[in-house]
Amino acid sequence: MPRTITPERLDSLFRPRSVALVGAANKSMFSQIAYRNLVEFGMAEQTYLVNRRGAETHGRQTFTSCRDIGQPVDVAYLMVPQAGTLGALSDAAAAGIRNAVILSSGYGEAGEVGRRAEAELVAHAEALDMVLLGPNHLGFANFADRKPVVSVPGLPQRAGSVALLSQSGASSAAMLDFAKMSGSELSYLVTLGNEAMITAGHVLDYLVDDEATRAVAIFMETIRDPGTFRRAARRAAAAGKAVVVLKAGSSELSARTAAAHTGALVGDDRTIDAVFADLGVIRVDSIEDMLITAGAAARLGRLARPGVGVVSISGGACDIIADRAEDHAMRLPELAERTRTAVAEAMPSYGTVQNPLDITGAAIIDPGLWPKTIAALSSDPSIGVVMAVSGLPWEREEGPYRAQAYVNAIGAGIEQAAVPVVYVNQVMQPITEYTREVLAEGRIPFAITGLRQAVSALSKLAWWSQATTGAGAEPSPVTVPPAGDRQGAWSEDAARKLLSDAGIPVVPAALARSADEAARAAAEFGEPVAVKLVSPEVLHKSDIGGVRLGVAGEAAVREAYEAVTSAAKSVPGARVEGALVSPMRGNALELLVGVVADPQWGPMLAVALGGIFVEVLKDSALAPLPVSAGRAEEMLRGLRGAALLDGARGTKPADVPALAQVIARVSDLAHALGADLESLEINPLRVDGSVIEALDAVVTWKEK
Amino acid sequence: MPRTITPERLDSLFRPRSVALVGAANKSMFSQIAYRNLVEFGMAEQTYLVNRRGAETHGRQTFTSCRDIGQPVDVAYLMVPQAGTLGALSDAAAAGIRNAVILSSGYGEAGEVGRRAEAELVAHAEALDMVLLGPNHLGFANFADRKPVVSVPGLPQRAGSVALLSQSGASSAAMLDFAKMSGSELSYLVTLGNEAMITAGHVLDYLVDDEATRAVAIFMETIRDPGTFRRAARRAAAAGKAVVVLKAGSSELSARTAAAHTGALVGDDRTIDAVFADLGVIRVDSIEDMLITAGAAARLGRLARPGVGVVSISGGACDIIADRAEDHAMRLPELAERTRTAVAEAMPSYGTVQNPLDITGAAIIDPGLWPKTIAALSSDPSIGVVMAVSGLPWEREEGPYRAQAYVNAIGAGIEQAAVPVVYVNQVMQPITEYTREVLAEGRIPFAITGLRQAVSALSKLAWWSQATTGAGAEPSPVTVPPAGDRQGAWSEDAARKLLSDAGIPVVPAALARSADEAARAAAEFGEPVAVKLVSPEVLHKSDIGGVRLGVAGEAAVREAYEAVTSAAKSVPGARVEGALVSPMRGNALELLVGVVADPQWGPMLAVALGGIFVEVLKDSALAPLPVSAGRAEEMLRGLRGAALLDGARGTKPADVPALAQVIARVSDLAHALGADLESLEINPLRVDGSVIEALDAVVTWKEK
Repeated sequence: MPRTITPERLDSLFRPRSVALVGAANKSMFSQIAYRNLVEFGMAEQTYLVNRRGAETHGRQTFTSCRDIGQPVDVAYLMVPQAGTLGALSDAAAAGIRNAVILSSGYGEAGEVGRRAEAELVAHAEALDMVLLGPNHLGFANFADRKPVVSVPGLPQRAGSVALLSQSGASSAAMLDFAKMSGSELSYLVTLGNEAMITAGHVLDYLVDDEATRAVAIFMETIRDPGTFRRAARRAAAAGKAVVVLKAGSSELSARTAAAHTGALVGDDRTIDAVFADLGVIRVDSIEDMLITAGAAARLGRLARPGVGVVSISGGACDIIADRAEDHAMRLPELAERTRTAVAEAMPSYGTVQNPLDITGAAIIDPGLWPKTIAALSSDPSIGVVMAVSGLPWEREEGPYRAQAYVNAIGAGIEQAAVPVVYVNQVMQPITEYTREVLAEGRIPFAITGLRQAVSALSKLAWWSQATTGAGAEPSPVTVPPAGDRQGAWSEDAARKLLSDAGIPVVPAALARSADEAARAAAEFGEPVAVKLVSPEVLHKSDIGGVRLGVAGEAAVREAYEAVTSAAKSVPGARVEGALVSPMRGNALELLVGVVADPQWGPMLAVALGGIFVEVLKDSALAPLPVSAGRAEEMLRGLRGAALLDGARGTKPADVPALAQVIARVSDLAHALGADLESLEINPLRVDGSVIEALDAVVTWKEK
Repeated sequence: MPRTITPERLDSLFRPRSVALVGAANKSMFSQIAYRNLVEFGMAEQTYLVNRRGAETHGRQTFTSCRDIGQPVDVAYLMVPQAGTLGALSDAAAAGIRNAVILSSGYGEAGEVGRRAEAELVAHAEALDMVLLGPNHLGFANFADRKPVVSVPGLPQRAGSVALLSQSGASSAAMLDFAKMSGSELSYLVTLGNEAMITAGHVLDYLVDDEATRAVAIFMETIRDPGTFRRAARRAAAAGKAVVVLKAGSSELSARTAAAHTGALVGDDRTIDAVFADLGVIRVDSIEDMLITAGAAARLGRLARPGVGVVSISGGACDIIADRAEDHAMRLPELAERTRTAVAEAMPSYGTVQNPLDITGAAIIDPGLWPKTIAALSSDPSIGVVMAVSGLPWEREEGPYRAQAYVNAIGAGIEQAAVPVVYVNQVMQPITEYTREVLAEGRIPFAITGLRQAVSALSKLAWWSQATTGAGAEPSPVTVPPAGDRQGAWSEDAARKLLSDAGIPVVPAALARSADEAARAAAEFGEPVAVKLVSPEVLHKSDIGGVRLGVAGEAAVREAYEAVTSAAKSVPGARVEGALVSPMRGNALELLVGVVADPQWGPMLAVALGGIFVEVLKDSALAPLPVSAGRAEEMLRGLRGAALLDGARGTKPADVPALAQVIARVSDLAHALGADLESLEINPLRVDGSVIEALDAVVTWKEK
C-alpha cells in the first residue's frame, strides 16, 4: 500500500479544492477552530459541514452524509469519535472523496487494542482506495495555496518557504507562533500523528517537488518508515532543499517516554545521528533552532564556502560569536591579505583587523564603515556568508536614537556584497511588523535574532552545503564468495581469506593440521608466533583457551598446537580444522572495524580505537554503508583519541589515507555481500605507520 | 587604593541625589540620550548641564564649570574628549563631587599609550579622592531608585530584582531589551568599561547589600581583580544571591580578540570554570541564558531539592525536556509511590504516570487536570520545583481559542503547590503587556519562555542551590617543614618525607649511599626494585638515565646504583646524595595529583588519570584549594575515564573514598605550605584497590 502514496497522489490531499468537515459541531473546539481557519483563508464556499443530526452548525446548514453534498470534495476532515470512523470513511468514499484527515485518538498510541484498531482503519481505507493522514493529529495547512485543513488556532496570514512537519499536534501551535515570530514563514504545516499510512517520508517526498517549499523542518519522535524517509531525504538533498530535524529520543528517558506515547521505537540515537550525517539531514535540539535554521536554509540556499565573516559594532558580541563558533564547529577564517588591506583602509586606526571584526563605536558617527567592511569581508576567498551584527528594534522606538540609519548602512553593504549577508541582532526577539518596516526600508532581505541562534543556524547550513554537494560514495567491486557459501559458521581461516580476496591486508598465517606443520610454519615465520584454533563452531576462541600468543621454541609450538586444538573439545560438536600459526607483531596502534546490520537502517560500519577507547570511553564512529575513503578519514578524525593517529604517545604516526582506504575496502566488501551478511568484525586492525594488517576477523551470516 | 572602594563608598555613586552632565552638547548622541533618560526618570531638577562654552543645551541653561553649579552634586558624568578628562576631574573635585563616570575611550584598550593614560587618570582621581566608573563605557542606571546615569536608549520603566553588569557598553542595549522581553526586570544596569578603579567585584560586593537586588548577571571578558571578585562572590553566595556570568574567552579565538580590545588577559578558561564551580558562580553561554537564569534565581531563590517535576499538555514537549535535561544534567526524578497514586487518580486511564508527565489532550476538556497533577508532583519528596508547560500568548488572541482558562487552571495548581512552580511556554517569545495581563489574571508569579531556556535555567539554579549550601571546605592541619627550609631544590627523598609527614602514603624506600647499602635494601624489600638517583639539582631523573626500574639480582642492583649516581655527572653542579631503592609495584591504576599556583587565582589542585587519559585526552579535573574529600570525589567522578575507578578494564575497583581522602590531604599540605609552594606533583599516585601510594613526587619552591 505505501507504494501508492506518490507525490502525485498527495496533490489532491494537500491542495484540496474543497473540504468536508465531518462531525462539525458548535460545541467542539476542534470544529470551531477548523471552520474558522477555512473561512479566514477564503474557503467558506468550498467547505461543507457534515453532522449526523443535520443540525445547523457554525451558522451554516449541514449535511447528514457526505453523499448528500452533491459536489466534488477532495478531503474529508474527520472529527468523529473513534467508534464512528470506519463508517464515516465508507460514507466519504461513497461520496467520491479520496483523502481523509483523521483527528481521533485511541489508535497506535493506545496499546495493543489501539494498534489493532489502527490496522483495521488502514485496511478499511485501502479497501476504499483512500489515503489517510493521521490519526491522532490536528490536520494540515497549505499556506502557499491558502488551504487550511487544521484545528490549530492563530494561523499566520503570511506564507513563506519553510514546510513544517510535526508528529506532535500539541506542540504545533507553539511552533507556528515561533515560525511567525522568527520570520521563518511557512509554506505548509503538516501534523503527522500516528502516520498510519502517510509518513514523514511521504510528505517530504511530496515537498521536494513543491515549488513554494525551499526547506523542510520536522519534529519527530520516531522515523516510522526509514526506507521512504531515506529516499525522500536524498531527493531533497539533490534538489538543494535542506531538511532540518528535531528528533527526540537522544536521552534514555525520552526514548522510553516517546515509546510510551507513540507506541513506536525511537531507534538507537547514535544510528540516527550517523544516518542523518550520511543523508545531509541537519539535526537540531530545540524548536527555535529548527525553525531558524530551516528559515536560513530557505533564504540562503547552499553556501558557496563554509567560512563565515562577522562584522559587528560590539566587541563583546565578537567574543560571544567566537566562543559559540568553536562549540558549533563554525569556521571563522582568518582574512586574506587583500581583505585585510581593504578593511584596514576603512577602519579607524585603533581598530583591530580580524575576523570577527569589531568596527567599534566609530560606526555610530560614521555608518559608512558598515558597507565598506561588509563588502571587504564578503569578497574574501574563504568566506561564504557574512553576519552583520547590529541592533534591530521590535517595538516602535522612542527618544532620539533610531536604528534606521545603521540598518540602511548595512543594507548598502548588502547591495555591494559578493556573498549573502545576514543581519543579526544580539538577542533573540520577535520580527514584528515594525521590524519588517525597518528592514524593508533598509532593503535587508533576511535577519536572525540571537547570536547563539545565528551561529547554530549558519554552522549547520555550512555543514549541509558541503555534505550535500558532490556525488555520493560509489562502492568499488570486490571479489566475494558465491552466494551459496555465504551461510553457516565460518572459521577465522575462512574469514581471513574473505578479507584477503577483497584486498584487505591480513597478517600472514599458515593453517597447520598437525603439530609438525605448526612447528614448520613457526620456523618459517620466525618466532615468537601466535597459535590459534581453527574451528567454524568456535567464534570466541580465547574464551575456551583456543589462543596462545608469543609462543617461542619448537617444543612450545608443538605443545601450543595440541593445547588449542584440544580446547575445542569443550564445545560440543566443534569440528577442528587445525590451528593458524602467524608471526607475533609488536606493539602498535590497534583499531576495531566492524559492520553490523541495523534492523531499521541496514548495514552500519563502526570504527573504534582499541583498548580503553572503546572499553572505557565508548569512543567509536558509525556510518551507514557505503563508506568512502574520504568518509572513513572523517570518521577517524572525529574519534576522541584521534591524536593517537598522529603518534601522540610516541608511536609511529598512522598513514591515515592508507588506513582510510582499508576501511573503505571493508565497506566495499560488506556492501558486496549484501543482505547475506549479519556481521563482520576485524579486531584488531593493526596500524604500524603505513603497515596495516588485520590480525583477527570474525564473519557471521544471516540465517536463510 | 582599591581598598577604599567599599559598598558604603559606592552608595553616593549608585544612588546619587544629583548629577552633572559634563560635556553636554546638543549634537552629541551620548548627551541627548543621557539627558533624556534623566528627564524621563524624573531627575530633571537634579540634573545640571556643564558645557565649556556655556551654550544653551537640550533647551536648558548650562554652567561653564562644575564649580558654578552652587549645589551639592554626587556624580559627574564626563562626556569630554580624552584630552580634557583630567581637567574636568579637577573641576568636579573642586566643586565637591566625589564620583565620576567617564565615557571617553582611548585608555587601557588602546595599547601602551592608552595604558599610560589610564594609570595617569587613576593617579589623578586618587589624588583628588575621587572614585571612577569606567572609562570607555556608557554609565549606569539604578532602576530601583530611578537614577539613570547612562547613555543607553530604551531604558525599561519597570524595575526588578536582577542587577546587570557588563564590560561591554555596545552590547548593553541588546541586553536591556532582552531583560525587558524575558521578564527579568532589572534593579541596576552597570556598564563597567575598562574598570580602571571600580571593578566587577566591587560592584558585586555593593549589590550583596542592596535590598532591591536578588541576583546578579555579569557579562565579562576578563576578571580584572580576582581577589575582590572572589570575596564578593562568596558574600553573594552566603546571602543567597545567585551570580550568573557570561564570561567570554572559552575559545582560543575569543581569548585572543578579547585581549586585543580590552587590553587584558582573559585567564585560562579551565581555571575560570574551576574557580566559578568553587564559588558557586553560575556560568552560561548566551545573553539570553544569562538573563533568564538570573531572573529565575531572583524569583525562585534557592531550591530545596534539585529534582524538577514536569507537567505538560504536549508529549512532544516532554520528550524535548527529557533530552535537554540529560544535556544539562538536570534531574527529573522518578515519582515516589505516593505521588504516582495521586497522579493516577487524576489522569485519564490511557495516560502514562511518569515524570515528565504528559497530561494529554484530556486537559483541554478538563483543565482540572492541571491543579491536581501540579499539586501531586509538587509534594513529591524528590522534587524542588515544577515546570508547568502550556501555551502563553504574547499577542492579543483572536478567534474562539483563549489560553486564559488553562492559565487559570495552572494558577490554581500553583496555589496548592508545595514547591515553586514555573509556567513554561514551549518556545521563546516576549513577555508583553498582554502576557502580563493573562498571567496576572491567572495569578501566575513567574514564567519562562522556551523549553531549552527553562531547562538550562532550572538545572543551573538546582546546581547553585546545592553548591552554595553548607560550609566551605576547612583544611585540616598538617605537619610541614619550617618556613626557612621551604626553598631551593628538593630531592625526591625530601619530597617523600614531606608527603609522608603530612599523612600521604608513600611507597617504602631506603636511601642508599653506596652500592652495598643499595643491595642490602633490595634484599630487604624483595626484588625486583627501582633504583633512583637522589640529587636536589636533578628534578627529571629519567631524562638523564637516573632511574632504573625492575632491577633484580644483587649484581644488577649494584650496577644500577653506580649507573644512576654516575648519571648525575651530566648535570653541572649536581650533588649526589645517593640512590633511593624501593620495591617495584605491579600494574594498577595510576593517577597524577598536582598543585600549581595560578598567577591570578592562587594554588589550584589538578587530578588526572595517567597514560593516554592525560596525554591524549587531556582528561583532568581542576579545583582551587582547599579541596575537601567530598570535592575530590566529585573531581574523580567527573573524569571521562571515571569508569576505570570502578574496575572497567578488569582491574581492582578503586577505594574511591580512601583515594579522595589522600587527595584532600595533598590539598591540606599545599594549603599549609602557602605562598612558599610553587608546585607539588605526585606522579604516579598508584591505586590498587584500597592500597594507595605515591610512587614519585616532585616539589618546587618559589624564589624568595
